[in-house]
Amino acid sequence: MAEARPCSIADALAIVGEKYSLLVLREVFFGVRRFEAMVRNIGAPRDILAARLRRLVEAGVLEKVAYSRRPLRHEYRPTAAGLELQGVLHLLRQWGDRHLTGTPPVVFDHACGAPLEAVVTCASCGRPVEPGSQTAHFQVEGWGMGGRRPADETAEAQSSPSQAVLG
Amino acid sequence: MAEARPCSIADALAIVGEKYSLLVLREVFFGVRRFEAMVRNIGAPRDILAARLRRLVEAGVLEKVAYSRRPLRHEYRPTAAGLELQGVLHLLRQWGDRHLTGTPPVVFDHACGAPLEAVVTCASCGRPVEPGSQTAHFQVEGWGMGGRRPADETAEAQSSPSQAVLG
Repeated sequence: MAEARPCSIADALAIVGEKYSLLVLREVFFGVRRFEAMVRNIGAPRDILAARLRRLVEAGVLEKVAYSRRPLRHEYRPTAAGLELQGVLHLLRQWGDRHLTGTPPVVFDHACGAPLEAVVTCASCGRPVEPGSQTAHFQVEGWGMGGRRPADETAEAQSSPSQAVLG
Repeated sequence: MAEARPCSIADALAIVGEKYSLLVLREVFFGVRRFEAMVRNIGAPRDILAARLRRLVEAGVLEKVAYSRRPLRHEYRPTAAGLELQGVLHLLRQWGDRHLTGTPPVVFDHACGAPLEAVVTCASCGRPVEPGSQTAHFQVEGWGMGGRRPADETAEAQSSPSQAVLG
């Protein structure tokens, strides 16, 4: 297999993109931090969930903390890096609410008192980040918008600009 | 396996949470819309990528459009529902940039001219959605913050409020 596009999304998904990983984070954010309750609420096989938890702890997304010494019992708490992923879950939840689910199973209020509708905005101007409002600058030599350069057989790859507006 | 928590995140991940699915969206947003180029840029097995594309088309995230009739050739374009997922990719990219990747492989400018830092804000008050600023209201009878009620063996499940602030 040839080398894939260098990409922080792919790197992030290698940590949190496995099946059940983001659902583990959902439970942790809901305050469910013990293995048995996670198994029950997520509906995942125990061995797979245990592997996901190990991976998330190794990657610094969760912290495994003993809450009892005799018998020894652990719970999982989100790290600061883990908490940063709350936004991803809000966006996926809203997308599911809009396009897939009948009645939203969970709704949120924001601290301001309004029903929470999470929007992705630009930290600088405060306006929404919408299709057509973003220009990508590709930093890795040889990898442009269309993929690897110098190009091979496709017209797409032949014109692989290192800068372009996202559609 | 017992019934899992009713959840729009889980529903969304059933569509876009399989390995490679979000990388397909990344390529489509970069303007890479043909199968061969996606295989090359994602580094995914052809049969798996073909299955992911079918699923994304069935779910209404991508549209499969013929761009040539003789020979018959197709490309994949994002639907409006697909474009809504750009924010998820920005957040994952930034998280990877911050925590995993050395030099960001791609950086973005926003239309306002500033380097793009995407933040999740409340549509009503415009302030960031941060840990501790969100109250969840659980809508499905029997499923609260801690999981299913009436509770079983764990203390967590025994107190499963239908409303709580997200940590």
